[in-house]
Amino acid sequence: MSARPLSGRDLAAAIRTDTAERAAELAAAGRPPKLAVVTATADESSAWYVRSIVTAAGKAGIACEVVDLGPEAPAAEIRERLESLSADGQVSGIILQTPLPGGAKLEDLASAIAPAKDVDGANPLSLGRLAAGLPAFAPATAEAVVRILEHHGVELAGRHAVVVGRSTVVGKPAAHLLLDRHATVTVCHSRTADLPAVASAGDILVAAVGRAGLITAEHVKPGAVVVDVGTNPTDDGGLVGDVDPAVAERAGALTPVPGGVGPVTTALLLWHTVQAARE
Amino acid sequence: MSARPLSGRDLAAAIRTDTAERAAELAAAGRPPKLAVVTATADESSAWYVRSIVTAAGKAGIACEVVDLGPEAPAAEIRERLESLSADGQVSGIILQTPLPGGAKLEDLASAIAPAKDVDGANPLSLGRLAAGLPAFAPATAEAVVRILEHHGVELAGRHAVVVGRSTVVGKPAAHLLLDRHATVTVCHSRTADLPAVASAGDILVAAVGRAGLITAEHVKPGAVVVDVGTNPTDDGGLVGDVDPAVAERAGALTPVPGGVGPVTTALLLWHTVQAARE
Repeated sequence: MSARPLSGRDLAAAIRTDTAERAAELAAAGRPPKLAVVTATADESSAWYVRSIVTAAGKAGIACEVVDLGPEAPAAEIRERLESLSADGQVSGIILQTPLPGGAKLEDLASAIAPAKDVDGANPLSLGRLAAGLPAFAPATAEAVVRILEHHGVELAGRHAVVVGRSTVVGKPAAHLLLDRHATVTVCHSRTADLPAVASAGDILVAAVGRAGLITAEHVKPGAVVVDVGTNPTDDGGLVGDVDPAVAERAGALTPVPGGVGPVTTALLLWHTVQAARE
Repeated sequence: MSARPLSGRDLAAAIRTDTAERAAELAAAGRPPKLAVVTATADESSAWYVRSIVTAAGKAGIACEVVDLGPEAPAAEIRERLESLSADGQVSGIILQTPLPGGAKLEDLASAIAPAKDVDGANPLSLGRLAAGLPAFAPATAEAVVRILEHHGVELAGRHAVVVGRSTVVGKPAAHLLLDRHATVTVCHSRTADLPAVASAGDILVAAVGRAGLITAEHVKPGAVVVDVGTNPTDDGGLVGDVDPAVAERAGALTPVPGGVGPVTTALLLWHTVQAARE
């Protein structure tokens, strides 16, 4: 038996189509959407991700300005730039890339992003509003997890979802989105005792740890739906997830890497940007 | 076998002592702490709770102003009052009582409470900061859960904590505080399938549903530590928790109601108020 692959490509394409339509409408109305990406790192995989966003934005008809402050930028300068972009009427959405210089915390600096432009849900106010059930932009990756499940008709209400990883950008907001959809939610992490036992209780397993192959067959209940959020670079320039390929023999369904959560994430980021521009 | 009672009285007394010392220091420095309690309800149990806060504040040397806007107050008036109290240099801490008139949401109105004065962690920004690991006031009840566990030497790191209840004021923030202390955390609720099976996986079980006796022996792993957050009024004017008394025969330890989480909650609210006054 091999797990049903839960591709993100069709869903991403549908979101892109909607996004491009809205972007065209906004441009025709004299309010073209614009995304600002603030970066302050020489990290290669971050640069790769920024280029992919610029390309995707261009295809959707969204202007994208990369504000590169360099890997030595002081936190105060990053914060000021986020504030001025927040006040800039031409800018619809703002993303702050990680890693940040000098151990600055994303959650801390991102509080300078106006919530209405916080298209990757990085401002703690966005997370709090999400947790409180108030309108807010969710981090695109976390939202991609639930959108891909819904797209493939996976029932969430009343089912047990286990999230492995407790980051502010993925694990915690994904847990809130799953709770909101009436799943019972368990959050595990590096300090969890007997991870295989806890993870394999899940009808749905979300792997968001950022370590290649950490989730093996023993972590998976037979027939479970597995969402692989990991995007770990390989030596030969490829990408692998957090889920060991052998899991496909045990899971009922599994999102591929690449082609699963990743394309949906990028599509949602741009969808959020046109949403932000409409308000 | 009968569960060890995890009283909150000693811990509450210790917090009250610290609070009274700080309050006296602040008063001597010409910056007396003051708590404002905004209420807009005729609800009897809310009125009872407000009176208990006023009494406790008085004993701690904290001025307490009850701002009663009446059960017909429009949301805009409540919001304006919260904003003016937030701007008032004499006020250290602000609480907004529930229930609110006309179906107004606490999470929504509480966004008008300045985070620095949000001593019951009701502003979604406080919840988001808490979830992001940034300094913030936690809702006093949620903090009382972890403080009472720590006071009694209950190990949290690596253990499985199950929280029954997903409210913004207790279940969700308690889950974040437990995660922060490296527990593996499961959140269950009314839509959870097979609650007894999920709840009885917990080494620690936090009952925060608000229904008398909902948690019975079948929900409890033998020897588990059970925290009863429920405060359900009885017909004869007493209080009972969410946990059925028979659980005492199965749990290893259990917080009593009254005398468990309740007194710690009130003590923490006043402790937060002197903390807020120092900043």
